[in-house]
Amino acid sequence: MKIAVVGLGLIGGSLAKTIKKNTKHSCYGIDTNRETIALALHQEAIDGEIAPDMLSDMDVVIISLYAGATVKFALDNIHNFKKGAVVTDTCGIKSEIVSKLEKPLSEVGVHFVGCHPMAGREFSGFQYALDNLFDNASCILTPTDNTNIVALELLKRLAKEMRFRRVVESTPERHDKVIAFTSQLAHVVSASYVKSPSLFEQDGFSAGSFKDMTRVAYLNENMWSELFILNKEALLPEIDSIISALTDYRNSIAESDAEKLRSLLRDSRDLKEKSNRQIANIK
Amino acid sequence: MKIAVVGLGLIGGSLAKTIKKNTKHSCYGIDTNRETIALALHQEAIDGEIAPDMLSDMDVVIISLYAGATVKFALDNIHNFKKGAVVTDTCGIKSEIVSKLEKPLSEVGVHFVGCHPMAGREFSGFQYALDNLFDNASCILTPTDNTNIVALELLKRLAKEMRFRRVVESTPERHDKVIAFTSQLAHVVSASYVKSPSLFEQDGFSAGSFKDMTRVAYLNENMWSELFILNKEALLPEIDSIISALTDYRNSIAESDAEKLRSLLRDSRDLKEKSNRQIANIK
Repeated sequence: MKIAVVGLGLIGGSLAKTIKKNTKHSCYGIDTNRETIALALHQEAIDGEIAPDMLSDMDVVIISLYAGATVKFALDNIHNFKKGAVVTDTCGIKSEIVSKLEKPLSEVGVHFVGCHPMAGREFSGFQYALDNLFDNASCILTPTDNTNIVALELLKRLAKEMRFRRVVESTPERHDKVIAFTSQLAHVVSASYVKSPSLFEQDGFSAGSFKDMTRVAYLNENMWSELFILNKEALLPEIDSIISALTDYRNSIAESDAEKLRSLLRDSRDLKEKSNRQIANIK
Repeated sequence: MKIAVVGLGLIGGSLAKTIKKNTKHSCYGIDTNRETIALALHQEAIDGEIAPDMLSDMDVVIISLYAGATVKFALDNIHNFKKGAVVTDTCGIKSEIVSKLEKPLSEVGVHFVGCHPMAGREFSGFQYALDNLFDNASCILTPTDNTNIVALELLKRLAKEMRFRRVVESTPERHDKVIAFTSQLAHVVSASYVKSPSLFEQDGFSAGSFKDMTRVAYLNENMWSELFILNKEALLPEIDSIISALTDYRNSIAESDAEKLRSLLRDSRDLKEKSNRQIANIK
């Protein structure tokens, strides 16, 4: 197949490198940054650069831009895609993207299926792209009742060829709800953790738990602010939930209520244990 | 030297194993659990069991019990320690311990120095003890103006022989303030994170950030409730700080205030970056 990757940033660049490393497909790139294209060609992450009007020659188009830019690119180029081509994306939210792209693309005979490759690094840009970024990652595909089954199967096969650890299917809505908890909330919490005045006093005292808590605080404000606001319906209840749980802990500690505190901690441990068991059962 | 470890749990058991593995000192154990003693003897983590009245023969006594039990054991056995012996502990808070033990022990000619070996696992008990638990850990010693310098130097030398990665000195007060942020807050946040109703819906969606956030939620409620309450003066401001930061994020998302959100995220990233640089400079 001929595959185009639009946007050779960390994720797009890593996808291109993975396609070249693990599959026999050709991979072409589109990026507004000349240096990125030069580097991608030099590193053989792509077989060539293409102009948008050459998308008509592509079997699969992976748009790997921010959410708003993804929708804009797809609609601006709606007449460039080949009839029967499969178009997908890599955004961290799915309802917004799928609701804006599935119908218009389908009306011109192009199959859109939402995708979220679940991996990342704390850096942005092609220079950080890796050909093994997805080796341990889930690839989430978000079909709807209207999704073309052949297009979905083609993307599932491609993800497996690329050696994602796992391919998961979900509705766009369920994706957004779960991702609000497992990924977006983690980033909000980490970004909140580092705001303590104690941050610069922790020399020599930082256990593994501190490193874990603050690892993802280094984030790209343009990408994440867009994702948080687009997914606020799912994300706000998660932030409220952790603030409420923190407040329960806070109050039992403030009142030196050891019994209440032990019961809160026991409840957390039971939940963690059950969740571990659930994950182990699934694997 | 003859060293006694009182309480062969995860930490005490790991200390005993590390002393036997990395030093030439003899190591004796005290534990109320017969099976623990049998297992420690079988695994050669100790050279023998001793009764409390045999503490009079020990050069160093490491009390590795919960905070309240540590103070009680030391005071109950105050006349069993050898004159000139060095007594230390392993509790996660230090002001409470040092303020209750330094003076009375000093009055009978025994040197107390507080200690916090900065390592742990999510399990408790000798069966989880490891002879390499401290290989990557800091050993924090908390001398005061009244600390006997020879006793302090002896413990520093012992920690180095045991091959802690680093030996750090701090006042008990600074220890408690920093640990509230780097360790206790991380445990409160992790224990709060798992209370979301979404916990059991995250199959296949859990990125590394989720695993990091929830790793330490599996905690011993008896030990941690005691530590949190004893250190509440330092811990409460940290919980308040993260609740306040989370609330700022929450409100800017609720209001779809992209500019404010970007600025909050940029600030978090700058802080994380500065903190990384500080840690790198120290190493």
